[in-house]
Amino acid sequence: MSDFLADFDAMSRFGATEGGGVERQAASAADGQTRDWFRIWLTENGFNCRVDAVGNLFGSLEWIEGASHILVGSHLDSQPKAGRFDGAFGVLAGAHAAAAVAERVAAGSITPSFNLTVVDWFNEEGCRFSPSLMGSGVFTGKFAAGEVLDTVDSDGRTVRGALSDIGYLGSDEPPECSAYAEIHIEQGRVLEEKGISIGVVTANWAVRKYLVRVRGEQAHTGATLIEDRRDALLGAAQMIVAVREVASAFPAGAVLTSIGRLTVQPNSPVVVASDVVMSVDIRSSEEAALDKAHELFLQAKADIEALGEVSVDIESGSLRPSTSYDLAGIELSESVAGGLGLSARRMLTRAGHDSINLKDLVPTVMLFVPSVGGISHAENEYTKPEDLLAGLNMLTGVLERLVVEGLSSEQEQS
Amino acid sequence: MSDFLADFDAMSRFGATEGGGVERQAASAADGQTRDWFRIWLTENGFNCRVDAVGNLFGSLEWIEGASHILVGSHLDSQPKAGRFDGAFGVLAGAHAAAAVAERVAAGSITPSFNLTVVDWFNEEGCRFSPSLMGSGVFTGKFAAGEVLDTVDSDGRTVRGALSDIGYLGSDEPPECSAYAEIHIEQGRVLEEKGISIGVVTANWAVRKYLVRVRGEQAHTGATLIEDRRDALLGAAQMIVAVREVASAFPAGAVLTSIGRLTVQPNSPVVVASDVVMSVDIRSSEEAALDKAHELFLQAKADIEALGEVSVDIESGSLRPSTSYDLAGIELSESVAGGLGLSARRMLTRAGHDSINLKDLVPTVMLFVPSVGGISHAENEYTKPEDLLAGLNMLTGVLERLVVEGLSSEQEQS
Repeated sequence: MSDFLADFDAMSRFGATEGGGVERQAASAADGQTRDWFRIWLTENGFNCRVDAVGNLFGSLEWIEGASHILVGSHLDSQPKAGRFDGAFGVLAGAHAAAAVAERVAAGSITPSFNLTVVDWFNEEGCRFSPSLMGSGVFTGKFAAGEVLDTVDSDGRTVRGALSDIGYLGSDEPPECSAYAEIHIEQGRVLEEKGISIGVVTANWAVRKYLVRVRGEQAHTGATLIEDRRDALLGAAQMIVAVREVASAFPAGAVLTSIGRLTVQPNSPVVVASDVVMSVDIRSSEEAALDKAHELFLQAKADIEALGEVSVDIESGSLRPSTSYDLAGIELSESVAGGLGLSARRMLTRAGHDSINLKDLVPTVMLFVPSVGGISHAENEYTKPEDLLAGLNMLTGVLERLVVEGLSSEQEQS
Repeated sequence: MSDFLADFDAMSRFGATEGGGVERQAASAADGQTRDWFRIWLTENGFNCRVDAVGNLFGSLEWIEGASHILVGSHLDSQPKAGRFDGAFGVLAGAHAAAAVAERVAAGSITPSFNLTVVDWFNEEGCRFSPSLMGSGVFTGKFAAGEVLDTVDSDGRTVRGALSDIGYLGSDEPPECSAYAEIHIEQGRVLEEKGISIGVVTANWAVRKYLVRVRGEQAHTGATLIEDRRDALLGAAQMIVAVREVASAFPAGAVLTSIGRLTVQPNSPVVVASDVVMSVDIRSSEEAALDKAHELFLQAKADIEALGEVSVDIESGSLRPSTSYDLAGIELSESVAGGLGLSARRMLTRAGHDSINLKDLVPTVMLFVPSVGGISHAENEYTKPEDLLAGLNMLTGVLERLVVEGLSSEQEQS
């Protein structure tokens, strides 16, 4: 097990930031270096590596020719100035857990009915190339590979070109799979505060995302009278304040609202902005609350337009509904935790994960380990070594069961 | 005179935008192309060209060896997606006016006491490289050339490197000068609304500029509870709204406030911003009102910090006081306008101009022509051909007087 921590430290050098985190945006050089290190690890540990058309990296252990695969994994890409654990923990834990299962298969302790594959999904984060959950979205048929490959970053570089740069524009067929498991840091502070080792995820929060454009008119900041201004940045600021007020209209913790990305045109100190584009993110565990938040958001937009200075257009909007993970996987996870003497608790995920895509395709298990202070998407994100090892132990137990028993779909009551 | 309009159209092709404007940020390729065209024009019309250490381009007519120069000019650089007239009109009008004066000197109609130089000041706009009024600032001893050359743009490119790229990193000594004249579009709608041809500028508005940094903490937009957030973009939005409210606290037109540039870190759709930097611009004709606006701005900053979510730091601040143009130059301008039958009106300038630097060094004349709708720093900025020609006529008259009489300093009563 201590091999795991040494390997995790070794892997965390790639894209390491001065603040103790990592920056490995999708298909960046640092993402490529991390993948290269991981691919060598997989090969040295007996996994057969494949890369599909959208850069998903698979490492397979095939015990039964032609049998379906149990998939386990997460993502190695990160946000800018991110923590070391988000995604990367799940990928490396998946690999170590799979290797431990392989040892037991080799020793004859267990007899698998399925093959086992570790996966690093391409571009889970969606910061350099939007949308997020890109690689798992193609794998599950939600996105078309061609459209994904044509997606450009803010410098106009395509996914195709960026993957080619780092040597991960593959052509292998992905494995056929019958169940998926993923472990991730909680990115909240429930487990830490309650002193629980393992979160067993039962459903995801519902999410609405919007791309909003505020339009004004370019003018001189020094010379143009206030009455003549159509200041897009002022309109955007009013929207940002209003979006926070949407969250405040609900009981604490019921609705989360954010604007994280904003671009200003022409963005000169002496020019009134003509155009601002913002990414709005609204989440709730309750779809009814999300619907109400959506209405409040539309009302805020209308109120700001009614002031007469700017226009506000919702250029695109998406709804990721709240859906449940399989009850069979939840019960299997609780059974494994009980057997290992690990405390476990059912919980929701507010954050998105590749498992949200996978669970619409195959029965899926989603596990959490504690996050200190719930800090995430930040360099000081932290999970204690003992919690990482408990998670690895848990994931190994789950995979042992899955490669033998598989997982048949049984819907959780939502 | 119609040569002027044809030349202006020819020059307006460089950096032309689809929206009918130009984009020629300082030391960009388009700025270089415009300068190259203008330098050829100067040479073909008998001017002797020089480029100083910070890229100021001078074209001189020397009738009297060793005599001091009357300077006339403005700037060829522009804001992003800017109008064709801001700066460029003043440079080309200065050149045509100087050429007209040279014809009268050659014809023996006037006998000059001074030489005459047209100048294109480097980086008046201050959008790519900050601060603005850069070339005239070095010429007048307000900035050190070395510091200016080391200034970097947002891509880390230095002024030195960028000037070298376009062939305008010169080493010529600038001419010694004894008076300066500049003509510019009004960038307001006073002249248009009152039907007056020429504005004679008596003083500039006082301006305070601030670089403000809002600090929060990077976090996950989807997973971090609102109570755990330190959202720098929300704090920035509150500042933007408050800065507009500062203007609203005064009678209409008394105080202008703006935030035109804003950068967000890390600027990802799913990351709460940790850091926002903004350029704040507050102006008034009355220094007492500007002082009051400054206090309101500081109070807004304190109020937003008191909410407990973010810190707001003023990283730098500058005050450009309201100072007067020479009364002798104002009276000379009014005399010339009267002689030409052009209506003229004394007025203030809200916008900054290179003449604001020059007037602290030598007696300076600043003239305006009407701007349709007062639109400026925008592609649809427009001044009618007849107003451009009236301005050229006016400037020619002023230069004729200046090369003969010079201009002795006599302070306007402020």
